[in-house]
Amino acid sequence: MPDPGLSPLQSSLPAAAARFGAHVLAEALAHGRGSAEPAGAAAALPSPPTLPFGRAPGAQEVPVGVPVPDGGPSPAMERILRGPGGLGTAGLSLARRPEPPAPGAPDAEARPEPAAGSRPIPGLYHHPVPEPDPARVEEVSRRIKRWAVDEVQAFPPEWEDQFDGFSVSRYMVACHPDAPTVDHLMVAARLMVAENVVDDAYCEDGATPADVGGRLLLAHTALDPVHTTGEYQPAWEESLSSDAARRSYRSAMDYFVQVATPAQADRFRHDMARLHMGYLAEAAWDETEYLPEVWEYLAMRQFNNFRPCPTITDTVGGYELPADLHAVPAMQRVIALAGNATTISNDLYSYMKELKSPGRHLNLPVVIAEKEGLSDKEAYLKAIEVHNDLMHEFEDAAAALAVACPDPRVARFLKGVAAWVDGNHYWHASNTYRYTLPDFW
Amino acid sequence: MPDPGLSPLQSSLPAAAARFGAHVLAEALAHGRGSAEPAGAAAALPSPPTLPFGRAPGAQEVPVGVPVPDGGPSPAMERILRGPGGLGTAGLSLARRPEPPAPGAPDAEARPEPAAGSRPIPGLYHHPVPEPDPARVEEVSRRIKRWAVDEVQAFPPEWEDQFDGFSVSRYMVACHPDAPTVDHLMVAARLMVAENVVDDAYCEDGATPADVGGRLLLAHTALDPVHTTGEYQPAWEESLSSDAARRSYRSAMDYFVQVATPAQADRFRHDMARLHMGYLAEAAWDETEYLPEVWEYLAMRQFNNFRPCPTITDTVGGYELPADLHAVPAMQRVIALAGNATTISNDLYSYMKELKSPGRHLNLPVVIAEKEGLSDKEAYLKAIEVHNDLMHEFEDAAAALAVACPDPRVARFLKGVAAWVDGNHYWHASNTYRYTLPDFW
Repeated sequence: MPDPGLSPLQSSLPAAAARFGAHVLAEALAHGRGSAEPAGAAAALPSPPTLPFGRAPGAQEVPVGVPVPDGGPSPAMERILRGPGGLGTAGLSLARRPEPPAPGAPDAEARPEPAAGSRPIPGLYHHPVPEPDPARVEEVSRRIKRWAVDEVQAFPPEWEDQFDGFSVSRYMVACHPDAPTVDHLMVAARLMVAENVVDDAYCEDGATPADVGGRLLLAHTALDPVHTTGEYQPAWEESLSSDAARRSYRSAMDYFVQVATPAQADRFRHDMARLHMGYLAEAAWDETEYLPEVWEYLAMRQFNNFRPCPTITDTVGGYELPADLHAVPAMQRVIALAGNATTISNDLYSYMKELKSPGRHLNLPVVIAEKEGLSDKEAYLKAIEVHNDLMHEFEDAAAALAVACPDPRVARFLKGVAAWVDGNHYWHASNTYRYTLPDFW
Repeated sequence: MPDPGLSPLQSSLPAAAARFGAHVLAEALAHGRGSAEPAGAAAALPSPPTLPFGRAPGAQEVPVGVPVPDGGPSPAMERILRGPGGLGTAGLSLARRPEPPAPGAPDAEARPEPAAGSRPIPGLYHHPVPEPDPARVEEVSRRIKRWAVDEVQAFPPEWEDQFDGFSVSRYMVACHPDAPTVDHLMVAARLMVAENVVDDAYCEDGATPADVGGRLLLAHTALDPVHTTGEYQPAWEESLSSDAARRSYRSAMDYFVQVATPAQADRFRHDMARLHMGYLAEAAWDETEYLPEVWEYLAMRQFNNFRPCPTITDTVGGYELPADLHAVPAMQRVIALAGNATTISNDLYSYMKELKSPGRHLNLPVVIAEKEGLSDKEAYLKAIEVHNDLMHEFEDAAAALAVACPDPRVARFLKGVAAWVDGNHYWHASNTYRYTLPDFW
């Protein structure tokens, strides 16, 4: 698994707010901030913003405040800084067309200050995000710990520091700026914790597919229930309380289906099945010490992926992207690219952490170094390029889809996914408890 | 995997025809029979039948023509023959309420003769089906072999006997009596062959999860495409032609998405992810020689399951069960129970085949014998009871859903699933090339 301790399901703040109109998201946020309506009924769909897609001035190829040592960037670094080039590339992208804000536009005036305390990877294309609302962070923090400790006994007492260091409340508040209530945020927070408990308990380094194959499937039944005969149904029911992983999945899913439509629940189950397949493939390669080709690694990482997190953005936002719109190939492509960009970002932020863990841990820089004969540094910098390309492709695909399908729910969903991507980056870049950067600059 | 040679994805003829009104299905069949319209456009939704659910007189607990030797049934057998009992059970079921056909009802008059050559397991609850249309069987047979041999090189020449013995054309014509054209049947036939090629190539006895984890995931990308950067995308594309498994999946999926809606394709991908998770769990237990509890085996078998086959019934029928109706928990329960009944039926029919294969092969009778201390015969007979209970629960759940949700597409889909279940049973019971029965009666 990519990030020992806490699966490929981590990250915190929406700079998509900047790209898609921070004032709109800020308003949406302000509506429900700190309130705690019952989670039973999904909130009505707020009137979605209709601002054009387009990379806002807040988007940064080179984050401020990070010095470039050693007299300037390396050739690989220069390539990253330059971005895509060549004849005609300026006109290729909808998302990447820089459009100066109109004088006096509310977007430009209302954009909140970027969150402090973030230390992004130099050259990593990302969007800074505003500071997550402290009142929400505090309330989610209090409630998620009560759930984890009292309701599902998700971890033993000695893991409390690690749980606190995970900062799941800041993470989820940052990733879901349009959640109408704290209850909606709790839906995301519980699933995130549960996903990490399962990864911790079943898939940590050294787990072989023979260990996890049966266990992951039985854990999956806490999300996707078994229907069998009266004689055997009760034993399955009981099994769902038998360990922290299944207790967490089951409880988090029970809360989720209270606010999700059946089609949203089905979507989530599918994304979790993808995730579990990804876990098993990675565990298989680990056991056989198979070093995949770069494209094979990227394919596996499309499954062992953050995808189940951004795709619940509508449920957490209190509205629904209809199943038919979710299923169109263009939307599937946007979702896959967003998931892939965030997942490779995770590879980059957890590189040092994984380097310190026992054995060889597969991540994109490691696979590129081995397969393409590059130094660790060159491979890491190339992996940044891969990430940036995925981000650009995601934004181009999202912009094209928004134009092709001018449904307000599509626009809001795409913004929600982008907000999740940015919040996830913020969380990684600001989580000094978990992550340190290599000395490649 | 349960049935060496050809995965848990096999089975042939719709006796649901009897239950749901054979004349309606027969008419639907007659419309497109032998025709070969282009597959590009799904046929319009035929006016669905509105006959009440209810076990038709054709339903048989004890099939005719199978003698009960040794002076009568054993106690376990008697229990099966008796069916569920106890105070109030007669009124519990909608589906199981026997309703004699009204005199002169078209249903009774038009019902075709049950197919000959079938040798059902004594005591196995099932519905006989009419003989699959020989003209369609012949045409599908001719075309599927051409596809398998010429288009995707699915198997080496020496496997031709085995391919012919699989009788996929008879299987698919029996399972999809309402397919409007041969092109629609071909969509189902290609996927069925592809699923079996993957199971044969990747999951045969002796495959360990470490072997199959990565390979199954990469094969899954032929159904659920990778979206990555321009540098690595071509190598993934090329990989889809690199072995029979991926060539088969990719080509079958390409044809499928031409007639399926995006939501139908998404549903199929989800069901295939479930199947692949099930393969991996079974392989894991096999490698560690873990003998699961009966409920654990049943849970695994809900994933390593026929499910992807009946759930394409609407695509093959040329209409769509909308995603929102597919996702409701009551429909999910019907689908799971249908899949489980057909899958346990497979366990029973392939029992002797698996007994002859090397090593211990997990199936329901084997697990019951080991875990519940029963003789092979008693365990087999108990597994028949489990199957029958699942069938009854499926029919009860389908009947209740049809009443609760009187949408014609729901009614047609439920009939399609039931037709698939019956066709699947027929195929197993008539496939003497593959299956023999134990000497337990």
